[in-house]
Amino acid sequence: MRKFEIKRPDERLRPAIQDKIDNLNKPKGALGRLETLAMQICLVQQTLKPSLCHPCHLLLGGDHGIEREGVSASPREVTWQQMKNFTLGGGGVNMFCRQHGFHLRIVDVGVDYDLSDVPGIINHKIARGTRNFLYEAAMTQAEMEQALDIGAQLVDACAADGCQVVCIGEMGVANTSPSSLWMHLFCDIPLERCIGAGSGVNAEGVRHKFDVLSRARDRFLELHSPYSAEDAIRYFGGYEMVTAIGAMLQAASRGMLILVDGFIMTACALAAIRLQPQVQPYMIFCHCGDEQGHRLMLDAMGAEPLLSLGLRLGEGTGALCAFPIIDSAVRMINEMNNFRDANITKYF
Amino acid sequence: MRKFEIKRPDERLRPAIQDKIDNLNKPKGALGRLETLAMQICLVQQTLKPSLCHPCHLLLGGDHGIEREGVSASPREVTWQQMKNFTLGGGGVNMFCRQHGFHLRIVDVGVDYDLSDVPGIINHKIARGTRNFLYEAAMTQAEMEQALDIGAQLVDACAADGCQVVCIGEMGVANTSPSSLWMHLFCDIPLERCIGAGSGVNAEGVRHKFDVLSRARDRFLELHSPYSAEDAIRYFGGYEMVTAIGAMLQAASRGMLILVDGFIMTACALAAIRLQPQVQPYMIFCHCGDEQGHRLMLDAMGAEPLLSLGLRLGEGTGALCAFPIIDSAVRMINEMNNFRDANITKYF
Repeated sequence: MRKFEIKRPDERLRPAIQDKIDNLNKPKGALGRLETLAMQICLVQQTLKPSLCHPCHLLLGGDHGIEREGVSASPREVTWQQMKNFTLGGGGVNMFCRQHGFHLRIVDVGVDYDLSDVPGIINHKIARGTRNFLYEAAMTQAEMEQALDIGAQLVDACAADGCQVVCIGEMGVANTSPSSLWMHLFCDIPLERCIGAGSGVNAEGVRHKFDVLSRARDRFLELHSPYSAEDAIRYFGGYEMVTAIGAMLQAASRGMLILVDGFIMTACALAAIRLQPQVQPYMIFCHCGDEQGHRLMLDAMGAEPLLSLGLRLGEGTGALCAFPIIDSAVRMINEMNNFRDANITKYF
Repeated sequence: MRKFEIKRPDERLRPAIQDKIDNLNKPKGALGRLETLAMQICLVQQTLKPSLCHPCHLLLGGDHGIEREGVSASPREVTWQQMKNFTLGGGGVNMFCRQHGFHLRIVDVGVDYDLSDVPGIINHKIARGTRNFLYEAAMTQAEMEQALDIGAQLVDACAADGCQVVCIGEMGVANTSPSSLWMHLFCDIPLERCIGAGSGVNAEGVRHKFDVLSRARDRFLELHSPYSAEDAIRYFGGYEMVTAIGAMLQAASRGMLILVDGFIMTACALAAIRLQPQVQPYMIFCHCGDEQGHRLMLDAMGAEPLLSLGLRLGEGTGALCAFPIIDSAVRMINEMNNFRDANITKYF
């Protein structure tokens, strides 16, 4: 499987960055999370003057074989309908991309519908939905590699435009199911704590989802014992999810910041970290949603999300909503004057 | 004492707003806090198409007699130094006003320094700092009325520019002290739980602050028993704080949204609510800081802050950082299409 060339950010710049932050015109630490964010961004970019040029949003769509088991409140057709709707500008993701100046790329990597003639959708379809992982692996090795490559390619296209920060969102009915299984396997958290209501199943639906997912998990463990991260990714993953993993790894290899959205994208970030742990310093965890388990998963990764607004729409909306805070952190270190320039008695 | 004409927002529009929100192209409730925010804003503005025209930020500066008791880590001169610095654009508040398009008004209502010839500072000085409330009331009845009037006048000037949303910040060394006392008296929370480190006193400093404030509280209760909200406001308040209260009440009377910042501005919001409870529906609580007691005070008011980023700079910075989220809520209800327009199978 493809290895990405990812280096951990060089820590030698840390003292100089900290010194700059501590001499800004404010009590030490008084800008809280903005200060730790500024540190992270400066380390990633290896500079004392960071920037967030040409932010891009990748919206990746794909369908899931497991949807056939009735694990989702939404019917499968919602995936393609929403993908088309995004091209018209009326989705959640569209509003927030407009608001924050993100270049939006809408990409079909596995939607179960022919979208090839829809203007505004980039066609990288691998197949019309994954296989049903209750019975077999969701994708082949070749398909997984293809998805990773597509992710890398999409990030290369962003980079060619001068992009320094990439946000990734998803549209894929039933994709909380593979996310729950990755969380369960990668964090060793009991499966029942990894399963929530997705787009809105009721208590009985959650029990059914647990039953389906635990049977799928048992079958996987029969076939793969011991299993690798790669095995779990291939067996359960959605095309849009593996593409997201490829995009994250490639973004890190290029020194770009990665904005991580909600439950599903956090599961993809987790999978990416299990493949190549040095990707994590490039990630900004943007939003903790209400999906049960999201907080648990973030905790397991030592991740502190910026927002907690109860969003559960997906599409990358939670990450996009956090962008102004990241921008504030960058403005702080670039625009705030220091005690000497400001002629302020340095206090604390 | 002046009464402001504040009407609670008419609730008859609620079902129509809810209907509009529920038919946006997303699972019901999937945009979490953005949905409740949109509801609040629509009710305040009595419309299904809200807007956030011409946001204004009032930055109010004043000094405090209680500073003489060594309750603050910062020396008194930091107030005027920072006020001057704000006119040069290098403070925290300046960055975030620029970032989010707020018209900034810097107002001296009680700084202990002559700032009258500094361009960019509006001079409404009541006195050079309040009296020391360890020994006497911080201000006279006439001064309190004057501060309320100044707040109202400042909001009138914003309204004349077409402002629909006003944010208020403060600069005033030692102003966590009156804030703690208001919290203690208005929420009936033990004083020790209302006192924190302010701009950075150590554990011994906190004990000293507790000692000073509890003596001041005892003296106040000897003089005013039973006491009214007005008594507590006059006895402990800073000029910048009472001006903030006046601004909040006037903003509500004009149907404007009020962005509430950190610990000190939350204490002012609390005082305003104790004077005229119908002001609360106009308030958006933007940030919960690290100052001990801030969360407790918000809880006591039933307020759910939008952000929790550990900021403790004051100046209104926490409120300003939350503005894009409020903007997102408005964009959601105005720009997101509904299921019918989008040709999406309505799910959930």
